[in-house]
Amino acid sequence: MSRVLVLNAGSSSVKFGLFTDAPEPEEIAAGLVETVGEETHLHLRDAGGAALAEDRLPPRDRGHHRAAIAAILAALETHFPGEAITAVGHRIVHGGLDFTEPQVLDEAALTRLEALVPFAPLHQPHNLSGVRAAQEAFPGATQVGCFDTAFHRGQPFVNDTFALPRAYYARGVRRYGFHGLSYDYISGHLAETAPELHAGRVIVAHLGNGSSMCGIRAGRSVASSMGFTALDGLPMGTRCGQIDPGVLLYMIEQEGMGPAELGEMLYRRSGLLGLSGVSSDMRSLLASEVPAAREAIDYFTARIRRETGGLTAALEGLDALVFTGGIGENATEIRAEICAGLGWLGVRIDPAANDAGARVISAEGAQVTVMVIPTNEELVIARAAARA
Amino acid sequence: MSRVLVLNAGSSSVKFGLFTDAPEPEEIAAGLVETVGEETHLHLRDAGGAALAEDRLPPRDRGHHRAAIAAILAALETHFPGEAITAVGHRIVHGGLDFTEPQVLDEAALTRLEALVPFAPLHQPHNLSGVRAAQEAFPGATQVGCFDTAFHRGQPFVNDTFALPRAYYARGVRRYGFHGLSYDYISGHLAETAPELHAGRVIVAHLGNGSSMCGIRAGRSVASSMGFTALDGLPMGTRCGQIDPGVLLYMIEQEGMGPAELGEMLYRRSGLLGLSGVSSDMRSLLASEVPAAREAIDYFTARIRRETGGLTAALEGLDALVFTGGIGENATEIRAEICAGLGWLGVRIDPAANDAGARVISAEGAQVTVMVIPTNEELVIARAAARA
Repeated sequence: MSRVLVLNAGSSSVKFGLFTDAPEPEEIAAGLVETVGEETHLHLRDAGGAALAEDRLPPRDRGHHRAAIAAILAALETHFPGEAITAVGHRIVHGGLDFTEPQVLDEAALTRLEALVPFAPLHQPHNLSGVRAAQEAFPGATQVGCFDTAFHRGQPFVNDTFALPRAYYARGVRRYGFHGLSYDYISGHLAETAPELHAGRVIVAHLGNGSSMCGIRAGRSVASSMGFTALDGLPMGTRCGQIDPGVLLYMIEQEGMGPAELGEMLYRRSGLLGLSGVSSDMRSLLASEVPAAREAIDYFTARIRRETGGLTAALEGLDALVFTGGIGENATEIRAEICAGLGWLGVRIDPAANDAGARVISAEGAQVTVMVIPTNEELVIARAAARA
Repeated sequence: MSRVLVLNAGSSSVKFGLFTDAPEPEEIAAGLVETVGEETHLHLRDAGGAALAEDRLPPRDRGHHRAAIAAILAALETHFPGEAITAVGHRIVHGGLDFTEPQVLDEAALTRLEALVPFAPLHQPHNLSGVRAAQEAFPGATQVGCFDTAFHRGQPFVNDTFALPRAYYARGVRRYGFHGLSYDYISGHLAETAPELHAGRVIVAHLGNGSSMCGIRAGRSVASSMGFTALDGLPMGTRCGQIDPGVLLYMIEQEGMGPAELGEMLYRRSGLLGLSGVSSDMRSLLASEVPAAREAIDYFTARIRRETGGLTAALEGLDALVFTGGIGENATEIRAEICAGLGWLGVRIDPAANDAGARVISAEGAQVTVMVIPTNEELVIARAAARA
């Protein structure tokens, strides 16, 4: 049987999913290869979540994608013998200005994607290394790239630019957005299940370890909270989110910080972790008695409300607010706190529906429909790979 | 007669105003000493705007405040003989964490203000140099500092902090706000003339060469668009406003820009000038046929609408929107464009009232009262100096 493989190659892990090769692919299995400290493990589970393999791999270089993907191939051959991978879909963080849709990855496309490494130096090289490794492991398969930036590329100029000297816009210093595969999934899901909302003005809050928000009108991205990199917008587990650029100049000129140290602080020691001093994990913060943990949560929810107001302005009104991502799907209390401050916008939730994690959690008759929709970025990639 | 002098000492000019020494001071005269190229001029006008003096001063060092203030003293003695300056009120950009009200500037206060120079290296040294020069020129007068940050110091934690490692908050890396004297004036004016709005939720858009917005509830600043420095928030004549911090890291690491060059670009070559390539001046942009000039205006108004949405979220609703500052008070077309996209918020203007520059420009029965109120930062300073 022909199958589709979905790969998400990061710096210290490769996530994968095995899908049927159909217009609407179904997940057969999923797993990841991750390196923690000196050890590399492969986890494989079936579609129901039952573990199929928990293997310790021989010592390897951290982030060695060729070894990881060879291990995935071997595990799939063991557990799903006789199945042929006909297409591999790759999550790629940056598609730049050109790639506004999934793309078959030939040499010309890979060359153009490599040129984008300076825009996403922490992620793009790993994504592309995953593609190279998959080309070797699955030489007969079509390699398809799916881009986290693509969904946002049609944004109007005012939401795509920074107020920098104009030449930088032409050179690609723009607000790319990111989390586009998640927004694409949610928007497609609304088109199928709630076409009247899909036709209107929707804000999706993708809240997880990385968090962003997107304003979508009639299925098209209008504005998003993330900008040129994954640093901007909402505070995240360890990333700062919105910050005065003058703070960076101050850190360099007055605190004597070098750019590497500054980047490390803003990417790895800021956000919920920095503010709380406790954890980057929302569950730990919610369970903590430390006052700074509560303050970090309050900052997170206040910034989400403020961004909701800003994106509503970009959409000129709001019909639906959708929560997704690990925090958005699971943190009942966070959803309640966000919505409690949005009554002025016509947001009113039904506490019982919110506690139950219902699909629609807004109160009967509320002006804005508030929903919880689990995202499925892998399915968006599998669909694109199956189509190719 | 005893008089109050108001001074605003910048890098290349010293603005001044002469006021009666009364609980509600009245302007008697105003002017400035400015250095353009090799020349330094003193301009003096009376309260009606009639020129009293246009003097070319002997060649001096640019920004030499002692010479500028000596020239102001001499001009006042010539044109207003026999009047005694009993108090000098100074505009000071940064009052840090401590100065939440106007402050008599003794040595201890000046020492604390000098410690804030790293927070505002482009402005604070000039402001303090002006104070030192005024102490020499008016040895019998009380020197009073009025701070652009003071109005905002009571903001809730979530609007005062960045999501950085917590130690930076304690060390003063906070969202200070700025334009506080203007917001203070507008808020006081509303308290007198529209107490029901003053008691509610008001957004003030101070739009000029520097621009910011502030959300005020019951006369207290709740949130503002400017942060730690004068770079953040709205795009300005030559300043970038809101920008992804990742852009700065990119400019340093990938474009090889040094911090001085980066600061120069973000402060002096960005904003309306950078986007349009035409001018930093709104009047020039409105008159221009160049498409990029129109795009710069569209970015400016779109960002103001987006910030209006964000500040409304911080206020949990909106009762009044007030335009002030050079652009806010005079650019009819800009006010109309901003408001045209805010119908969702209950903003609806009366085009005839807007064209006429009426005090209230919202349409009859509109949910949000939209006003144009000329700001008067000098009067706020004169009042504080007269009280001292």
